[in-house]
Amino acid sequence: GWARLDVDRARRTGDAEVVYGPGKTVVQVVSALAELHARHPDRAVLATRLDAGAREAVRAELPGAVIDNVARTAVLGPLPPPRGLVVVVAAGTSDGPVAAEAAVAARVHGAGVERIDDVGVAGLHRLLAVREQLAHADCLIVVAGMEGALPSVVAGLVGTPLVGVPTSTGYGVAAGGVTALHAMLSSCAPGVVVTNIDNGYGAGVHAARVARSAAPRCVPNSSSI
Amino acid sequence: GWARLDVDRARRTGDAEVVYGPGKTVVQVVSALAELHARHPDRAVLATRLDAGAREAVRAELPGAVIDNVARTAVLGPLPPPRGLVVVVAAGTSDGPVAAEAAVAARVHGAGVERIDDVGVAGLHRLLAVREQLAHADCLIVVAGMEGALPSVVAGLVGTPLVGVPTSTGYGVAAGGVTALHAMLSSCAPGVVVTNIDNGYGAGVHAARVARSAAPRCVPNSSSI
Amino acid sequence: GWARLDVDRARRTGDAEVVYGPGKTVVQVVSALAELHARHPDRAVLATRLDAGAREAVRAELPGAVIDNVARTAVLGPLPPPRGLVVVVAAGTSDGPVAAEAAVAARVHGAGVERIDDVGVAGLHRLLAVREQLAHADCLIVVAGMEGALPSVVAGLVGTPLVGVPTSTGYGVAAGGVTALHAMLSSCAPGVVVTNIDNGYGAGVHAARVARSAAPRCVPNSSSI
Amino acid sequence: GWARLDVDRARRTGDAEVVYGPGKTVVQVVSALAELHARHPDRAVLATRLDAGAREAVRAELPGAVIDNVARTAVLGPLPPPRGLVVVVAAGTSDGPVAAEAAVAARVHGAGVERIDDVGVAGLHRLLAVREQLAHADCLIVVAGMEGALPSVVAGLVGTPLVGVPTSTGYGVAAGGVTALHAMLSSCAPGVVVTNIDNGYGAGVHAARVARSAAPRCVPNSSSI
Amino acid sequence: GWARLDVDRARRTGDAEVVYGPGKTVVQVVSALAELHARHPDRAVLATRLDAGAREAVRAELPGAVIDNVARTAVLGPLPPPRGLVVVVAAGTSDGPVAAEAAVAARVHGAGVERIDDVGVAGLHRLLAVREQLAHADCLIVVAGMEGALPSVVAGLVGTPLVGVPTSTGYGVAAGGVTALHAMLSSCAPGVVVTNIDNGYGAGVHAARVARSAAPRCVPNSSSI
Amino acid sequence: GWARLDVDRARRTGDAEVVYGPGKTVVQVVSALAELHARHPDRAVLATRLDAGAREAVRAELPGAVIDNVARTAVLGPLPPPRGLVVVVAAGTSDGPVAAEAAVAARVHGAGVERIDDVGVAGLHRLLAVREQLAHADCLIVVAGMEGALPSVVAGLVGTPLVGVPTSTGYGVAAGGVTALHAMLSSCAPGVVVTNIDNGYGAGVHAARVARSAAPRCVPNSSSI
Amino acid sequence: GWARLDVDRARRTGDAEVVYGPGKTVVQVVSALAELHARHPDRAVLATRLDAGAREAVRAELPGAVIDNVARTAVLGPLPPPRGLVVVVAAGTSDGPVAAEAAVAARVHGAGVERIDDVGVAGLHRLLAVREQLAHADCLIVVAGMEGALPSVVAGLVGTPLVGVPTSTGYGVAAGGVTALHAMLSSCAPGVVVTNIDNGYGAGVHAARVARSAAPRCVPNSSSI
Amino acid sequence: GWARLDVDRARRTGDAEVVYGPGKTVVQVVSALAELHARHPDRAVLATRLDAGAREAVRAELPGAVIDNVARTAVLGPLPPPRGLVVVVAAGTSDGPVAAEAAVAARVHGAGVERIDDVGVAGLHRLLAVREQLAHADCLIVVAGMEGALPSVVAGLVGTPLVGVPTSTGYGVAAGGVTALHAMLSSCAPGVVVTNIDNGYGAGVHAARVARSAAPRCVPNSSSI
Ligand SMILES: Nc1ncnc2c1ncn2[C@@H]1O[C@H](COP(=O)(O)O)[C@@H](O)[C@H]1O
Ligand SMILES: Nc1ncnc2c1ncn2[C@@H]1O[C@H](COP(=O)(O)O)[C@@H](O)[C@H]1O
Ligand SMILES: Nc1ncnc2c1ncn2[C@@H]1O[C@H](COP(=O)(O)O)[C@@H](O)[C@H]1O
Ligand SMILES: Nc1ncnc2c1ncn2[C@@H]1O[C@H](COP(=O)(O)O)[C@@H](O)[C@H]1O
Ligand SMILES: [Mg+2]
Ligand SMILES: [Mg+2]
Ligand SMILES: [Mg+2]
Ligand SMILES: [Mg+2]
Ligand SMILES: [Mg+2]
Ligand SMILES: [Mg+2]
Ligand SMILES: [Mg+2]
Ligand SMILES: [Mg+2]
Repeated sequence: GWARLDVDRARRTGDAEVVYGPGKTVVQVVSALAELHARHPDRAVLATRLDAGAREAVRAELPGAVIDNVARTAVLGPLPPPRGLVVVVAAGTSDGPVAAEAAVAARVHGAGVERIDDVGVAGLHRLLAVREQLAHADCLIVVAGMEGALPSVVAGLVGTPLVGVPTSTGYGVAAGGVTALHAMLSSCAPGVVVTNIDNGYGAGVHAARVARSAAPRCVPNSSSI
Repeated sequence: GWARLDVDRARRTGDAEVVYGPGKTVVQVVSALAELHARHPDRAVLATRLDAGAREAVRAELPGAVIDNVARTAVLGPLPPPRGLVVVVAAGTSDGPVAAEAAVAARVHGAGVERIDDVGVAGLHRLLAVREQLAHADCLIVVAGMEGALPSVVAGLVGTPLVGVPTSTGYGVAAGGVTALHAMLSSCAPGVVVTNIDNGYGAGVHAARVARSAAPRCVPNSSSI
Repeated sequence: GWARLDVDRARRTGDAEVVYGPGKTVVQVVSALAELHARHPDRAVLATRLDAGAREAVRAELPGAVIDNVARTAVLGPLPPPRGLVVVVAAGTSDGPVAAEAAVAARVHGAGVERIDDVGVAGLHRLLAVREQLAHADCLIVVAGMEGALPSVVAGLVGTPLVGVPTSTGYGVAAGGVTALHAMLSSCAPGVVVTNIDNGYGAGVHAARVARSAAPRCVPNSSSI
Repeated sequence: GWARLDVDRARRTGDAEVVYGPGKTVVQVVSALAELHARHPDRAVLATRLDAGAREAVRAELPGAVIDNVARTAVLGPLPPPRGLVVVVAAGTSDGPVAAEAAVAARVHGAGVERIDDVGVAGLHRLLAVREQLAHADCLIVVAGMEGALPSVVAGLVGTPLVGVPTSTGYGVAAGGVTALHAMLSSCAPGVVVTNIDNGYGAGVHAARVARSAAPRCVPNSSSI
Repeated sequence: GWARLDVDRARRTGDAEVVYGPGKTVVQVVSALAELHARHPDRAVLATRLDAGAREAVRAELPGAVIDNVARTAVLGPLPPPRGLVVVVAAGTSDGPVAAEAAVAARVHGAGVERIDDVGVAGLHRLLAVREQLAHADCLIVVAGMEGALPSVVAGLVGTPLVGVPTSTGYGVAAGGVTALHAMLSSCAPGVVVTNIDNGYGAGVHAARVARSAAPRCVPNSSSI
Repeated sequence: GWARLDVDRARRTGDAEVVYGPGKTVVQVVSALAELHARHPDRAVLATRLDAGAREAVRAELPGAVIDNVARTAVLGPLPPPRGLVVVVAAGTSDGPVAAEAAVAARVHGAGVERIDDVGVAGLHRLLAVREQLAHADCLIVVAGMEGALPSVVAGLVGTPLVGVPTSTGYGVAAGGVTALHAMLSSCAPGVVVTNIDNGYGAGVHAARVARSAAPRCVPNSSSI
Repeated sequence: GWARLDVDRARRTGDAEVVYGPGKTVVQVVSALAELHARHPDRAVLATRLDAGAREAVRAELPGAVIDNVARTAVLGPLPPPRGLVVVVAAGTSDGPVAAEAAVAARVHGAGVERIDDVGVAGLHRLLAVREQLAHADCLIVVAGMEGALPSVVAGLVGTPLVGVPTSTGYGVAAGGVTALHAMLSSCAPGVVVTNIDNGYGAGVHAARVARSAAPRCVPNSSSI
Repeated sequence: GWARLDVDRARRTGDAEVVYGPGKTVVQVVSALAELHARHPDRAVLATRLDAGAREAVRAELPGAVIDNVARTAVLGPLPPPRGLVVVVAAGTSDGPVAAEAAVAARVHGAGVERIDDVGVAGLHRLLAVREQLAHADCLIVVAGMEGALPSVVAGLVGTPLVGVPTSTGYGVAAGGVTALHAMLSSCAPGVVVTNIDNGYGAGVHAARVARSAAPRCVPNSSSI
C-alpha cells in the first residue's frame, strides 16, 4: 500500500491528490483511486496517464468511473459545478490526447471547459475565425507541438491569461517536444506561461484555479468536454 | 524610428506594448518610451532590461519616469489602481533583480503587489512563517535559481495560482538557469506553470491578468513594490 | 597572403568567393577584397561580418567600397542588374542586422531586393497588411529570433519559395538562436528551408539564385536595399 | 473527422495540404486522403510517413493510389506535367528512403525529378563523374547522414540552388542526424539551405517550387522517379 | 569466464567486488556470484540490476541466495553485523526500486538500515513528521526523481552526512533523471553529495562506509530492509 | 540588509550559514560575515568565492579575518579543534583553487586536513607513492578536471569514503567541467559520490561531517591547510 | 543492387570497401559481400554490425565466410600475413563486443593482433601486470565505457601510438558512451586519439595501418584473434 | 614550484612532459620550461597555449627559446633529427593556429613535417592538386572547423594513417567546434581518428609517434615548419 498518501492535500490547497499512472501496477491504480474516492465521496477524483490495462482494470473494478480513452484518464465521483470558463485550443490532430487531458483536468478541478481543435498557424484563417470564442474565456490553454508557435499568435490576439502546453509531436530537432517548449518559453508575446511537455494535467489545474477565481460570467454550454 | 510599433496592442489585449531594452540604442529606448506614453497618456508604460546608460538617458530625457535600478526598469505615466493581489516570493538574495522586475511588471499591469524575500528551501521555517501571507494572494510568483525547488514547496502549501520564475543564479550544472527551469517544469506539485529564465516581466503580466480578474478581496497595503 | 584563394569559384558556380571577416586581420580583409576585385573588376565582390576596425580600414584603403554599418558588409565593384525579386521579412528590431546582411548578399548576387520589417507574430495585423507584397516575390527570406514562428505563419499565407533565418536574439532557452533554428526546422508549414543562426549571407545567396532563375516578372523598384 | 482540414491551402499557396501519417489511425489516413482527393480531383494528393498498416489500408480502400514502399508514400490523382528539373543526390544506401520521399514530393508538387545514388564523399570519383547531370538541374536536393559532408562538396562544384537533407543514419555522436544537420548548416560552401532531419518531403516541396518557377529548359527524361 | 575477476578488492578496499547484471548472460551472473561466494564464504556478496531471467536463474542455481524483486538484487552469504545506521528516504512511489537497491547495498556493506517512503516536498508535513528519525541516522540517502528537491529540504533540517540519488522518474524535461541530478548538484543546502541517476548501489556503498566508521550509537531495529 | 539570514542553521544542522560571495556587493559580504561572527563568536565563520575586491574589503574592515587568495575565502573567528582527518587529493596545478577551497571548508567545519597535489593519472607512480597517506584518512576529497579519472583510480586503491570534485579545467568537450563531472558520476569504482563542478566547499562540508563522526584516530599534523 | 559500389577503393587507399550491415536487407549484405569477394579473391573482405539474421544468411549463402558472433562480423577470403602488432585492451566484460570488432578489423586489414581483457582502472594491479605486453605493441587500441579512464592511464605507462574507443556501456550520465568519448578526448595524457562510440572497426583500420608501416619486429603469436 | 613534476615521463613513454600554459602564471611557465630543459638538455622541450604575456616572458628569460606567435608555442633545446614525415593539411585560413600547433608538436616529438593550407572541400580542385603530397606522408593531420568535412574527403583519397583535428571556427550550430568534432567522428571514410577541439598538440604527438616508427623513406625537405 501507499505509506503516506497525501490525503490532507485538499484541505491545504483546495484540490485532492491525483493518481499518476506510470510506475504503478493496475492494483495500485485502482486502490489509490478507490481510497481517494472514499476520502472525498462528494467530489470527483482523477487518475491520469492510464495505459489500456489500467483503464480496463478501473472499468472493471470501479464501475462508477468515467474513462476517457483519448485523454487516458479516469474520473470517479460527481463533477463539481463549473465556475468560470477554460478554453483549450489545439494546433493539430496529434495534439488531441494532450488537449483532452487538459480539458478533463480543468473540468475535474472545477472549471467549465470548451475546446477548439486543428487551428495550427500554417492556416491562420482557421484561428482568426474563432477569435470571439477565445476572447470570452477566463483562461486559455494552448496546445501545440513541432515549432510551438500557436501560443505566440493567440497571445497577440487576446489578453486572456494563457498557458502554453508543448507536445511531443514532430521528429528530428522537434526533439520530443523540447523545441515547442523552448519556443513557447521564448515567446515574443507577453505573459505566456508554460508547462512541461505533454503536461495537459498541470495546465488544467492552473487554468481551473484561474477560472474559478475569476468574476462570474455567463458560461452556458461549458460542461461538454 | 520603429517602422511598425504595435500601437494597437492595448485595444486587442488590454495591455500596451512594452519596450525591451537589449539591442536598442539609448535614443531608441527613450523615443519608444516617449511615443508609447504619447499614445497612452492615461496609463503607465514600461521599459525593461535597461542598462545603466539607458536608465541614465531616460532619467535625463523623461523626468517623469520612475527608474528602478535593481529591477532595471523605467515607468512613465500614472500607475493604474491596484486590482487583486500578486505576491512575489524569492528564494535568495541574488534572485532580487528578477523578483523586482516581476513586481514592477505586475504593478504596471494593474495588480497590487507584495514581496517576500529570502525564503529558500534550505531553511524551511522562514517559509512556513509566511504561510498566511501566501494564502491571501490572488496569484503567486515564485522566483528561484540553482535547484529551483521553491515553487514545488510553495505549491504544496497553498492552492493559489502560481507562476515559477527560474533565475540564472548558480554555477556548473545550474547552467545559467536551465536546471531551475527544468526542475520547475518537472515539479511534483500540481499546477505549477513557468516562464523563461529570468523572465520576471512575463510572470508579472500573467499574474496581473489573473489577479485583476479575480473576485474582489480586501487588499489594504499592496501598492508598495 | 592566401595560399589558395578560390579564384576559380565564379567559373564553377557562377558566384565569386566572398571574404568572411572573423579570424582575419584588417590587412588580410583589405587585401583579400582587393585581390577578388582585381580578378572580377566587372562585378561586385563582398566582405561580411566586418567589425568596426575592418570597416574603417576598408573605407580608408578601398575608397570605392560601399560600407553598410548595420549589415557590417563592404561591397566593391559594380552591382549586377537585378534579376527577379527577393523580399526580406524581419520579425523585430533586433533582427535588423541579419536582415540587412541577407539583403546585401542577395543584391550582390544578382537579385532585386525589398525589405519588410517589424512584422512579428505577436501583432498579426502587421503581417496580414503586407500579404500582397509577400506574394509578388520570387523568393522570401524570413528572419526571426526568439521562438522563430514567423516563417511558419508566412509559409501558410503564400506559396513562394521561402528561406527561414533564425537569429540569436532572445535570452534563456532562446539559447543564442538554437530555439528559433529548431522551431523553423520543425515548421508545420510545408517547404520551409533554413540556414544557420544569423546566416543572412547564406540565405541571400540561395534566394538570389532562385530569383535569378525565375521567369521574368515586372519588378520596378527592387534596387533599394 | 477532421474538424478544420485546411482545404483552402491550394488557393492560398498553390499546393494542397498533405496527409502526415504518424499519430493518425489507418481510418484517418484513408479518409483524409479521400477527402483531399475529392476536393482536388484534378491533381495528385499525397500522404507521407505511412507505416505498413496504413499503406495496406490505402491500397485496399483507394485502388487508384500509387504506393511507394521505400518512400512510404501514397499518391492519389493525376500527376501534374513536370516543370523544371529537380535532381535528388544521395550519399549512401541507407539514405534511400529519405531520397525517395523527396523525389515523390517534388514530383507531386509539379517538378520533373532525377535521382543520383551512392555518391558519398569517401569515393569522390563517383561524384565527379556525374557533374554534368548536377549542373543541368534547376534545384538540387542533397541527402546525407553521418557527417553530412556531401552538400558542401556538391555546392562547391555547381551554383544551382541546393537543399541539404540530413538523415538519421549513423550511430554514436551521429546522434540520429543532428551531426549531419549541424554540419550542413555550418557548411563552408555558400548558399546551402537545409531541412529537418529525414524531411525529404519539405525539401521536395521547396525544390519543386524553385524548379517550377525557373525559366523553361529541355528536360526530356524527368518523369521516372 | 572472467579473465581477470578483481578477487583482491576486499583486501585493498574492505569490500568485495559486486556483480553488475546488465550485459551479462544468466550463466555469467550465476557463475560470477558463485565464484565471489567461494572466495568470500564468510560474507555476503551482491549482484545488482538483475532482470527477471537472471533472478530466476540465481534462485534455481544458488538456493542460498536472497532475491529482492523490487531492488532487483541477489545476496549470497551471511549478512555482516550492522554497524551504524543508514536511513534511506524516498520521495514517491516510483522511487521505490532505487531506494530498495540503496538499502540492500548499504546492509550488505555492513550498515544497519531504515527506510522512510513517500515524503515528497509537495506535502511537507509528511517529512516534518519524521524529523527525529532523520536526525538519529549516521548517514542519509535521499532518493527523488522529477525536480529532485527533497535532498535540499532534508539537508536544511539536519546536519547528517547526506547522499542524494536522482531517479529517472518523470517525463519531458525531467529527461530521464538529468534534471533531478542537476538540481541535487545545484542544491542551495550545504554538503549534498550525489550519485549517478538511479545509482542506489553507489549511494549504499558510500553511506555504509560512513556509518560503519561513525562512533557507536544505539541502533536496535536496523536489520529489516 | 538581509531580510531573513538563516541564523538558526547552526542549531538545526550543527554548522553555521556560510557567505557565498557572487552577486553580493562588498558591503553585503562584509556585513554578512560580521553579523554571522556576532552570532557565533566562539566559532569560525566562512565566506567563499570572494573576488579580489571583496577580499580587500574584508581585510580592511575585519582585521581578524584570515584571507586565502588561492581558495578565495575569508575565515573569521577561532578554528574548531580538528576531529578526524580529511585528505584532499588534486590531479593537476590548475585544480589548486578548488582543492584549497575544499581544504578550508573542511577545516572550518571541524576536521583536520591534509593535501596531496599533482598526482594525475597520466603519471601513476606519483599516486602509488602516497597510498599510505590516502589510507589513513577518514574521508577523501579527490579533485580533478579534464577527463576526471582520478577518483576512479583512488577508489580502486582504498576503501575510505570518497567525494569527487570535478573542476572546470580543460577545453573543447571538457565543457567547463561537465565531462569530469559525468565521468566521476559514471565511475566503475564503487561508492564514488560527487559535487557540482568546482564545488570544493560542498565537498569540504560533507567530508568534515564524515570525519568528525568517525571513531577517533591519531591525527598529529592535520591543522596545516 | 548497389548503383555505385566503391570497387576502386583498394587501389586508392590500399584497403577494400567494407560492408556496414545496419539498414541493409540480408540479401543486400550477402550480395555485397559476394561482390567484394569476387573483386578481391586474394584478400579477406569484411562485413560488420551484422545482426543474427544477417549472420545466419551469410553462413548459409557463403560457406567460406568466417562468422564471429561476439564481434558480429563476417570475413570472406584469405587473411593477409600479419605485419606489425596491434594490442587491443578492454576495461570490462561488456566492452567485449567492441574489442572483438576492433581485433577482427585490425587482423583483416593486415596486422597481427593480441587482446588483453578486464583491466579496468578500479583494479590497477591488473593493468600494471601486463605492462610489458603493452610495451611491445606497434599500436594500442584501448576500449572502455562508463568514465572512459583507461586510455589516460595506459598512455601514461607507455609511449606507443594509442587509439581510444569509447563504448556505450553504463547508464544515466554515461549517456550511451558520450561521457567516455568526451573523457578520452579530454585526456590529460598526451597523444590519445579517439573514434566514435563503439567504433571498433575504425580503430582497427587505423591501428592496422600504423602497425603495418612500423619497422619489422618479432611478433610470434599474433594471429589468434 | 611544481610539487610533482613528471620528470620520469620521457623514460616511461619516450617523450618529455610538456608545459600547458593556461592556468599558469608567467613565472610558472618560465620556471617549468627551464626545469624541463635542465632535465633534458639534449632534447627540445615544449610549451603550448602561451598568451602574449607568457611568450614575452619566455623570450626575455629564456633567450634560447624559439617562439611561434601563430602556434603560440615556445621550444627550448635542440630539435631531434626528423624521422618519418607528418603532413598537416588545413581547410581554411582560421584553422592556421591549430595547424601550426600540430606542426610544432610533431616536429618537437621527432617527425619531419610539411604543411598544406587552404584546401577546404568547397573548392575540391585545390585538394586534388596535392594528392601526391598527401600520399607520401607517414601520417596525416587534417585540420578543419565548421562542418569538418575535410578528413572524410582526404581519407577517401589515400590510405595513410590520418588524424582529424576539429577547430572552433564557425558560429551558430558550429558550436565552438562540436559539430566539426562530431562530423569527423561520424566519418563515412574508414580509419579516421580524432582529437579534442583545437588540440593540434595531441594530434602532433600521435602523428610523430606513428611517423617515427614507420619504415624509413626519403624525406628531404621536412624540417621547415
Ligand atoms: N523583460 C522582458 N522579457 C521578455 N519579453 C519582454 C520583456 N520586456 C518586453 N518584452 C516583450 O518584448 C516586446 C517588445 O519587443 P521589441 O519590439 O523588440 O521592443 C514587448 O511587447 C513584450 O512583449
Ligand atoms: N499527468 C500528470 N502529469 C504530471 N503530474 C501529475 C499528473 N497526474 C498527476 N500528477 C501529480 O502527481 C501526483 C501523484 O504522484 P504519485 O504520488 O507518484 O502518484 C499528484 O498529486 C499530482 O500532483
Ligand atoms: N513527411 C513530412 N514531414 C514534415 N511535415 C509534413 C510531412 N508530411 C506532411 N507534412 C506537413 O504536415 C501537414 C499535415 O499535418 P496534419 O494536419 O497533422 O496531418 C501538411 O500540410 C504538411 O505541411
Ligand atoms: N562498424 C562500422 N562503423 C563505422 N563505419 C563502418 C563500419 N563498417 C563499415 N564502415 C564504413 O562504412 C562503409 C560502407 O558503408 P555502406 O556503403 O553504407 O555499406 C565502409 O566503406 C566503411 O568505411
Ligand atoms: Mg492539420
Ligand atoms: Mg540566504
Ligand atoms: Mg517590436
Ligand atoms: Mg557505400
Ligand atoms: Mg504520492
Ligand atoms: Mg602536471
Ligand atoms: Mg570486472
Ligand atoms: Mg578560403
